[in-house]
Amino acid sequence: MDQPMKMESQVWRYEGGAIQKVTDSIVTEYPITIVLNEQEFATLVCSPEYIEDLVVGFLASEGIIRSYKEIKELTFIETTGRVIVNTFKVNKLNEMFHSKRYVTSCCGKSRQSFYFYNDARTVKPLKNVDVTVSIDQCFQLMRQMQESSVIFQDTGGVHNAALCDMNGIVVDRTDIGRHNALDKIYGHCLKHSISLSDKIIVFSGRISSEVLLKVAKIGCGIVLSKSAPTELALRLAEELNITTIGFLRNHSLNIYTRPERIKVPGVPSLT
Amino acid sequence: MDQPMKMESQVWRYEGGAIQKVTDSIVTEYPITIVLNEQEFATLVCSPEYIEDLVVGFLASEGIIRSYKEIKELTFIETTGRVIVNTFKVNKLNEMFHSKRYVTSCCGKSRQSFYFYNDARTVKPLKNVDVTVSIDQCFQLMRQMQESSVIFQDTGGVHNAALCDMNGIVVDRTDIGRHNALDKIYGHCLKHSISLSDKIIVFSGRISSEVLLKVAKIGCGIVLSKSAPTELALRLAEELNITTIGFLRNHSLNIYTRPERIKVPGVPSLT
Repeated sequence: MDQPMKMESQVWRYEGGAIQKVTDSIVTEYPITIVLNEQEFATLVCSPEYIEDLVVGFLASEGIIRSYKEIKELTFIETTGRVIVNTFKVNKLNEMFHSKRYVTSCCGKSRQSFYFYNDARTVKPLKNVDVTVSIDQCFQLMRQMQESSVIFQDTGGVHNAALCDMNGIVVDRTDIGRHNALDKIYGHCLKHSISLSDKIIVFSGRISSEVLLKVAKIGCGIVLSKSAPTELALRLAEELNITTIGFLRNHSLNIYTRPERIKVPGVPSLT
Repeated sequence: MDQPMKMESQVWRYEGGAIQKVTDSIVTEYPITIVLNEQEFATLVCSPEYIEDLVVGFLASEGIIRSYKEIKELTFIETTGRVIVNTFKVNKLNEMFHSKRYVTSCCGKSRQSFYFYNDARTVKPLKNVDVTVSIDQCFQLMRQMQESSVIFQDTGGVHNAALCDMNGIVVDRTDIGRHNALDKIYGHCLKHSISLSDKIIVFSGRISSEVLLKVAKIGCGIVLSKSAPTELALRLAEELNITTIGFLRNHSLNIYTRPERIKVPGVPSLT
């Protein structure tokens, strides 16, 4: 698309006790509005690339579609920022409930962490997770993701997410919104039927409950972040059978849940 | 309230080539649902303190209320996480439109950055801004905010926002959501009729368009962040008469917009 990911701007830079005008790269933001089955559904603000993948990932994440083939039409109109989506089946109830809170009187203890209706309906504990990773690979994948994000190095204003396997990065995406970066990956996976049981997500942002739920929906058994997790995210990770690693910085990291998938030299198995 | 802001957890810590189990502090997340005039309005996930202020700030930010006295009732029910809000006037149209995109055929050039209906309606360029700040004060206020956030030092998993004047921090708030931290400040200001023309916002997160709009709504003429701004945020800052400072780290910073409010020793005036 024609929209740039960053723009040059004149800024006053204060450093070492002196001030001067310099040229700096600033990350752009681009609002898109999803019109779903002829109804305005949501407006997202995003970095202007991979818009179609973003919309597919977002709709899957919100429980509107489960597979790419449910989409009849997806047209991005760049001049207006509108994305027109029509699905083969129209489920008004789903669309209406997409952000309604999941509250029920018979809510069992094991599912009390799910606070959105659609999450309670769509997120299941992962089965058939077939991935282990060594400590060294964790550091290597994070470094690879950071090195490949030129836009982050230029602007410092974006989040990165990468889908990886043991041979390195499969696909990486950048966005000003951390959820968007993950949705762009999700959309790509759905579109290209990428098998996920052997993949891991490497992520620049914090592991909140929403991020953890997205990782579960995408279907990855390990998530690796350089930032902090939340307590609710860790509870969900336990329930949903996901290994969480956080605070990966330089040569240190924390393993929070399901540590058995992480291989440490000289240690038989973490439990 | 009874919900803790953080919890202790056992984690595997890898550092200096060795792995061991340690106790770590993890930040909590707490979902609240706002029921506005008997209709479910929104669900937010937040850090469990200053919930009432958060809800007041959120409703003001969404254009539902303009002043604290428009609220007839605000009751937080901790057991269910519901916040029951009733306003004196009920404006169904406002409530319906609260997240609809602002799209109109006669949208003038100067307001094209406003992509939500309610923002276009409520955000005006700031008048009567009566605040200047020296470079040294910028560094000092950021340091003060960071030092006062015990929860950030413990968990690394939260954002901080502080309302400051030339005598230091007036009020500072912490939340896992960066918007929430600002809304908690906004709510506090509305409740206590705090005059804002001489105040500045110090913030730990990036200055996105949404953050910039919130600063404008709160009514502060300067925003100071340790992180990056976006290009759309800077365009809005120019239009709305707000000074933006980013990448404040150690002894360096960038001034992006309206630099005349920043005093640099030996420099008459930045323009």
